Amino acid sequence: MSSNNITISLDAMGGDDAPHMVIAGAELARKEFKNIKFIFAGNETEIKSRLSQYPKLESIADIIHTDDVVPSDMTAGHALRQGRQSSMRLAINAVSEGRAHAVVSAGNTGALMAMAKFVLKTLPGITRPAIATVFPTQVEDKGSVVLDLGANIECSARNLVEFAILGSVYARSVTGVKRPKVALLNVGSEDVKGHGFIRKASEMLTENLKDAEYMGFVEGTDLNTGVADVIVADGFTGNVALKTIEGTAKLVSSMLKNSIKSSPLAYVGYLFMMPAFKKLKRRSDPRLYNGGMFLGLRGLCVKSHGGTDEVGFANAIKVAYHLAEYKFNDNVAEVINTMSLDDMFIEEEA
Amino acid sequence: MSSNNITISLDAMGGDDAPHMVIAGAELARKEFKNIKFIFAGNETEIKSRLSQYPKLESIADIIHTDDVVPSDMTAGHALRQGRQSSMRLAINAVSEGRAHAVVSAGNTGALMAMAKFVLKTLPGITRPAIATVFPTQVEDKGSVVLDLGANIECSARNLVEFAILGSVYARSVTGVKRPKVALLNVGSEDVKGHGFIRKASEMLTENLKDAEYMGFVEGTDLNTGVADVIVADGFTGNVALKTIEGTAKLVSSMLKNSIKSSPLAYVGYLFMMPAFKKLKRRSDPRLYNGGMFLGLRGLCVKSHGGTDEVGFANAIKVAYHLAEYKFNDNVAEVINTMSLDDMFIEEEA
Repeated sequence: MSSNNITISLDAMGGDDAPHMVIAGAELARKEFKNIKFIFAGNETEIKSRLSQYPKLESIADIIHTDDVVPSDMTAGHALRQGRQSSMRLAINAVSEGRAHAVVSAGNTGALMAMAKFVLKTLPGITRPAIATVFPTQVEDKGSVVLDLGANIECSARNLVEFAILGSVYARSVTGVKRPKVALLNVGSEDVKGHGFIRKASEMLTENLKDAEYMGFVEGTDLNTGVADVIVADGFTGNVALKTIEGTAKLVSSMLKNSIKSSPLAYVGYLFMMPAFKKLKRRSDPRLYNGGMFLGLRGLCVKSHGGTDEVGFANAIKVAYHLAEYKFNDNVAEVINTMSLDDMFIEEEA
Repeated sequence: MSSNNITISLDAMGGDDAPHMVIAGAELARKEFKNIKFIFAGNETEIKSRLSQYPKLESIADIIHTDDVVPSDMTAGHALRQGRQSSMRLAINAVSEGRAHAVVSAGNTGALMAMAKFVLKTLPGITRPAIATVFPTQVEDKGSVVLDLGANIECSARNLVEFAILGSVYARSVTGVKRPKVALLNVGSEDVKGHGFIRKASEMLTENLKDAEYMGFVEGTDLNTGVADVIVADGFTGNVALKTIEGTAKLVSSMLKNSIKSSPLAYVGYLFMMPAFKKLKRRSDPRLYNGGMFLGLRGLCVKSHGGTDEVGFANAIKVAYHLAEYKFNDNVAEVINTMSLDDMFIEEEA
């Protein structure tokens, strides 16, 4: 891979609508980024026949042929053992072999996490990778990076500190926030401020977080206020919060639809408001927030929603492209080097 | 207290707008329930002067005088030791002394929980009380009881099983669902289905839940779909989910407002849609969902939001009234008697 190009390797067979949305998504990303290149891992015949529709994309694409695919219902353990020739695994291998800067897959999340961890390994100083994404907030054009969203069900104080570092480096290098505000997700009761590992992480962050401002605890209400640039949670809580946001957005939209249907007058009003609703829909389009980043690994890996279309998949590619463009991992390494995490957590390690 | 009346004791001094909203809220509840009576704990002069505006309410009200109040920023421990003569404590005492069926307070949550636990004690077979409330769902007029919302940060499998019992008895006795569907809140990953205590609780519920249908795990997306009548979580996760719903509702509403402001045409449409929006606002009015129930104690206790007005406070009274009317605690005792929880969890206890 040349130093001026950014090569993204794609699991061409992962996702409900693969390989169609993978290839059409790559074409959308190609139009946006001049120096992008692709490696498609999957069935060569199928990929070639679809690529022939996009000659420009074809000219910047390599193919790694395989007939093997990780089924969406396969356990991570099985996928790890039996999927060594799968499109997912070969796409990840392209990163570990230095052929690609980042990998994107819309396949089985558990399998992708397990394979990426196994093949790419964690960055020096980082014990566990986290899944992160950018949540929309009430402040227009401002997002909050939230992690972990489900990679680690049980977490230690050290894990949370690592997530805080990963999140703040992301905010600084990719989003361009000079001194990101970092918070820990907690509950509101004044007396019992959450689990012990959260309180311990809070002490460590107060003393040790570099190039970022540790602001303490926030509650679930703050996930979408934009008050923090980075919000850190254990993977269980983060996953529930992510899904709760999805569910609530659906509830509000169903309530709104019912209100509109409730009277002809309201329907007339709705017609006037169509452009405004379209704008709202565009802003809250889940495809724009597609792309769960696996942070903390020696290679860059992004998970696309399995049910997304080419627009959503192109967004996941964009997320991977930016991580590579802003040299996310080099920046993490720089911070980790100055922090001596192993010394900070020497008791925990012992 | 006569067998035909339901007496609610009120902490007249708790909440931002107390005692005004407490007394005005009681008046609203009086109009709704013919057999309701009240005990107001707080400053007698202030209460009497306000009660004089409502002669009918005055005629069904007793006052327990005290000048002492639990400040909103006092820790639970302090409140427990120093608040023995506070309006909150005397209102709770009225329940333990058999003078009232239930207590409602809009004061300091931590203090109320600590005092209620200390004074009222847990029901036989129940080791920990939980905070519960009814979440609105996409199914009109159908709510889901969700608990625990923050009383217990660390939970065991047994705690979750207890919460499932409390929630299902609530759904059956108060909401009138014959065979409530009960679920555990968990994460979606197929491989690692959440914490060990959740998996263990799931096994216990599969085998032992009476008069209810245990349906397994649901994710955060299902908190508002109405798929379950009862959703059980540890207090940390439940609290984060509750706050996340509040935050997301605010995000969507702020996005909607921005879209309306974005064009004059949209604003015209908005005018047509006013009645529909008003209906939506009514349905999603947080005051209607006011009233966090402390379930699992030998006396009924409801926490009102501290910042609510008389409409919200009246709703909290309504919640307490229904718990008393449908003899919630008697129904719990009946179920617990048939389940021998202590035998089920004999290993854990040992």
